[in-house]
Amino acid sequence: RYGQAEKDHQTGAATGLAYTQAGGDTLSIEISLAKGKGKLTLTGKLGDVMKESAEAAFSYVRSRTEELNIDSDFYEKYDVHIHVPEGATPKDGPSAGITIATALVSALTNRPVRKEVGMTGEITLRGRVLPIGGLKEKSLSAHRAGLTTIIIPKENDKDLEDIPESVRDDLTFIKVNHLDQVLEHALLEEN
Amino acid sequence: RYGQAEKDHQTGAATGLAYTQAGGDTLSIEISLAKGKGKLTLTGKLGDVMKESAEAAFSYVRSRTEELNIDSDFYEKYDVHIHVPEGATPKDGPSAGITIATALVSALTNRPVRKEVGMTGEITLRGRVLPIGGLKEKSLSAHRAGLTTIIIPKENDKDLEDIPESVRDDLTFIKVNHLDQVLEHALLEEN
Amino acid sequence: RYGQAEKDHQTGAATGLAYTQAGGDTLSIEISLAKGKGKLTLTGKLGDVMKESAEAAFSYVRSRTEELNIDSDFYEKYDVHIHVPEGATPKDGPSAGITIATALVSALTNRPVRKEVGMTGEITLRGRVLPIGGLKEKSLSAHRAGLTTIIIPKENDKDLEDIPESVRDDLTFIKVNHLDQVLEHALLEEN
Amino acid sequence: RYGQAEKDHQTGAATGLAYTQAGGDTLSIEISLAKGKGKLTLTGKLGDVMKESAEAAFSYVRSRTEELNIDSDFYEKYDVHIHVPEGATPKDGPSAGITIATALVSALTNRPVRKEVGMTGEITLRGRVLPIGGLKEKSLSAHRAGLTTIIIPKENDKDLEDIPESVRDDLTFIKVNHLDQVLEHALLEEN
Amino acid sequence: RYGQAEKDHQTGAATGLAYTQAGGDTLSIEISLAKGKGKLTLTGKLGDVMKESAEAAFSYVRSRTEELNIDSDFYEKYDVHIHVPEGATPKDGPSAGITIATALVSALTNRPVRKEVGMTGEITLRGRVLPIGGLKEKSLSAHRAGLTTIIIPKENDKDLEDIPESVRDDLTFIKVNHLDQVLEHALLEEN
Amino acid sequence: RYGQAEKDHQTGAATGLAYTQAGGDTLSIEISLAKGKGKLTLTGKLGDVMKESAEAAFSYVRSRTEELNIDSDFYEKYDVHIHVPEGATPKDGPSAGITIATALVSALTNRPVRKEVGMTGEITLRGRVLPIGGLKEKSLSAHRAGLTTIIIPKENDKDLEDIPESVRDDLTFIKVNHLDQVLEHALLEEN
Ligand SMILES: [Ca+2]
Ligand SMILES: [Ca+2]
Ligand SMILES: [Ca+2]
Ligand SMILES: [Ca+2]
Ligand SMILES: [Ca+2]
Ligand SMILES: [Ca+2]
Ligand SMILES: [Ca+2]
Ligand SMILES: [Ca+2]
Ligand SMILES: [Ca+2]
Ligand SMILES: [Ca+2]
Ligand SMILES: [Ca+2]
Ligand SMILES: [Ca+2]
Repeated sequence: RYGQAEKDHQTGAATGLAYTQAGGDTLSIEISLAKGKGKLTLTGKLGDVMKESAEAAFSYVRSRTEELNIDSDFYEKYDVHIHVPEGATPKDGPSAGITIATALVSALTNRPVRKEVGMTGEITLRGRVLPIGGLKEKSLSAHRAGLTTIIIPKENDKDLEDIPESVRDDLTFIKVNHLDQVLEHALLEEN
Repeated sequence: RYGQAEKDHQTGAATGLAYTQAGGDTLSIEISLAKGKGKLTLTGKLGDVMKESAEAAFSYVRSRTEELNIDSDFYEKYDVHIHVPEGATPKDGPSAGITIATALVSALTNRPVRKEVGMTGEITLRGRVLPIGGLKEKSLSAHRAGLTTIIIPKENDKDLEDIPESVRDDLTFIKVNHLDQVLEHALLEEN
Repeated sequence: RYGQAEKDHQTGAATGLAYTQAGGDTLSIEISLAKGKGKLTLTGKLGDVMKESAEAAFSYVRSRTEELNIDSDFYEKYDVHIHVPEGATPKDGPSAGITIATALVSALTNRPVRKEVGMTGEITLRGRVLPIGGLKEKSLSAHRAGLTTIIIPKENDKDLEDIPESVRDDLTFIKVNHLDQVLEHALLEEN
Repeated sequence: RYGQAEKDHQTGAATGLAYTQAGGDTLSIEISLAKGKGKLTLTGKLGDVMKESAEAAFSYVRSRTEELNIDSDFYEKYDVHIHVPEGATPKDGPSAGITIATALVSALTNRPVRKEVGMTGEITLRGRVLPIGGLKEKSLSAHRAGLTTIIIPKENDKDLEDIPESVRDDLTFIKVNHLDQVLEHALLEEN
Repeated sequence: RYGQAEKDHQTGAATGLAYTQAGGDTLSIEISLAKGKGKLTLTGKLGDVMKESAEAAFSYVRSRTEELNIDSDFYEKYDVHIHVPEGATPKDGPSAGITIATALVSALTNRPVRKEVGMTGEITLRGRVLPIGGLKEKSLSAHRAGLTTIIIPKENDKDLEDIPESVRDDLTFIKVNHLDQVLEHALLEEN
Repeated sequence: RYGQAEKDHQTGAATGLAYTQAGGDTLSIEISLAKGKGKLTLTGKLGDVMKESAEAAFSYVRSRTEELNIDSDFYEKYDVHIHVPEGATPKDGPSAGITIATALVSALTNRPVRKEVGMTGEITLRGRVLPIGGLKEKSLSAHRAGLTTIIIPKENDKDLEDIPESVRDDLTFIKVNHLDQVLEHALLEEN
């Protein structure tokens, strides 16, 4: 079951790119907020590295509420659930880090994520974006899904040459060092 | 021991369709609410994917209390127990997601679930309904149990042709993209 | 070590029937209440299915406090311990469900359990009683222990023919669909 | 390292009898109370059955504070630690149940345990005393340690004949059905 | 890396003696107190028996605050961390019990531990000191580290003959039954 | 992917030196603080020894807030997340102890860490710095990354001779016994 780009801009959800033994695929990161006390739930058959990656994205957002125009008390007011459909498919690795952070900021600021954007990159606690593997396969799956803009780590610049030219020409690659740049290109203004 | 349709419309319980190595079967999803502090208990020999699926259904409902006419404080007032009899039979997979969400909304709104309805479909945090496997076997078991209306994911449309015509003709298939459509067809008005 | 019927009506304890590789046996379900905050403790070398069965029984009782004449705040006032002697013998399966529920209602209402009654049946969150296995062996052990009344699931009706007539004639079988019927036959009036 | 009887009556400690592959041995059950909030700690390389046995003993005492002349709020005021030296020796089984209960009542009532008394027996939540194994080996080790009074379950009466007469004549066996009888014979008046 | 005696009397740290397959060694037990709520943290690659031994030492101290001149509320005011460098070396066994208790009393009373003292012995909840293994190897390592006074369990008296006379003559052995005696010989007056 | 020195002085992050089967490498230790209640989160595929090492560093800082000019209530006000990118690479061992402590003090005092400094050393609860392995490989990777000052444990003095002279001459080695010395050389004044 191949992924497809969203039909509308989504709030609280972003599209990542995965690389598995079966090749590349897109994956949705979904966030739900509910009145609560700061509990973080992670589901979608996620491996330990991906869970820790989500925790890093979450802590980054919590530590930058002021700069991100997020209520600094959100953690005390809400329970946060991060889910990655399709629930029976195992997922792992750190490369969904910036996608999780983007979906989370979208949910907390009510700013939609552009429907044509996919992204991949490890996030650190300082918001830095670290390089990832499988850029070629990820780009092919993004293209197949109908995405047109792909946000990638600057350090993966050297891997662009591995993507078939026909695909590369259809896609706009945005190279980033920091989550601020991701958010700038992925988020629309508040609804 | 084959399943049977409920004899009466039930509140806080809904009928799902399971697909195991032994073929299709119906299963009941039961919800109990008790005065408490928001603890969620999941029982019935459920595998990890099914537990996560229940957590997704639960979070979806919690994040949409206003639209669903549910007291937004229910999570602070009740402990919620989701159980799937028969307790010695292992169960897994994400396809009970919409059934769990439906039973939960039924329990929280006091609206009964139509006794003639069975359903299958993965739920996401946005309430989307994702396709499932084993539609043929599930439909046969629903038919055998006496159900007449089956709610399925729209993406499973292509699998209807695999169901024997004699069975297909006895059943009404409702194809859905979102939980809102499931609830519209499965729930009666409040008691 | 074969079980024996209780010599007196017991409050907070009920007699179940177990079926193991070594044949049938009776088992006591004991409940203790102590001032506390709603902690549930389950002991007696219980397998996961039996523990979940106890949780289902517990949730059923919590969700029906009004109908059962139980203080609706009991869960906030007491810690509840459910224990099944003999502590070195492994026990599992869902068939003690109605026995656990009965012992719990007895403890919370101060109504004694009739000493001559044994019972077996899975309980669901709606209080339904589901069929169990090993009725023949369980009946033989109940007979040997001196019990005279056996409460069984209505769906096990068909298995009564497997019990030797000499034993069957000594025992009164009460067939039930719901826990309400169990309590009606098993509990005496409040002390 | 063979056990020895205590030189003085002890408060908050009692002497049990263990039966291992290496034969019989005595073991001390020690209780410490410290200002706290009801946490129960179990140490001494205890197996799961022995831990559950300690929980049963603990719950029995909590549920009978009035009859035992114990402050009914003790559980909210103290943390309770139950330890069984020697810490490197694995211990398991339910037969220390009445010893744990006795040490606990001693600690909470400030009544010393008679130094010449050893005991063995499973405890249930109703305070019943169930039979144990290895009575012969346990009696030999009690004799060797210098104990003179051994409290045993009434149901083990039939096993006394297996103890060598020379040992049996040196020991007083007290046969009990219930913890009340244990406490009557094991505890002195408050210091 | 062989241990060495401390250069100064230390508060909140004491020197124990370990016996491993590689022979004897000294080890430091370090305590840190920080404003908190009674959390106990145990680190240093400790095995289960050593962790339980630390819990026993901790409970002993908590239960004797009055006799030890410790603020009886310390457990509600502080988090306590017990660490045993070197963090990559596995450690186990109950014989550091009295060392842990001594370091803890030192930290809570602000009384330094004499720098020339090493010690070994299991502690019980009553403060009793039980015998240990490897006294010969432990003594050799204490001697090599420059310690001059070794506190040992009285029951290990019989093992002193196994220590080479040249080493034995350099060391003062203090034989103890109870932690009170350990503290008397190991602690200086408050700073 | 080889490490590189930071381009700017960083607050809440410090550079450690790792030694793995694949040789030496630099690693970043990142700290994020967010309004919270004292929860400590450790991520980055850390082994147990490294996690315990982080706990020791954390407890040291908590126990010395006064001397370190840190708000003594920080633990009650913040949740602390310690992360070590790159999230898919397993990391273990105690030698990042002083780096973690330095990053933490930097985050809590707002004093930047000098960008040219790398460090390695186990930390104890008293702030002592214990020797580590792989100094040669660590120094080579530090040199390759462009670091110019390396803080090492004094006890590793003897291992400096193993480093190629050409590398050794480019690096300034600071030998330390205690974390105070680390902080003195690694931290700049508050921003
Ligand atoms: Ca897919
Ligand atoms: Ca390339
Ligand atoms: Ca079935
Ligand atoms: Ca088809
Ligand atoms: Ca039995
Ligand atoms: Ca039959
Ligand atoms: Ca012994
Ligand atoms: Ca016999
Ligand atoms: Ca050493
Ligand atoms: Ca000897
Ligand atoms: Ca690297
Ligand atoms: Ca050298």
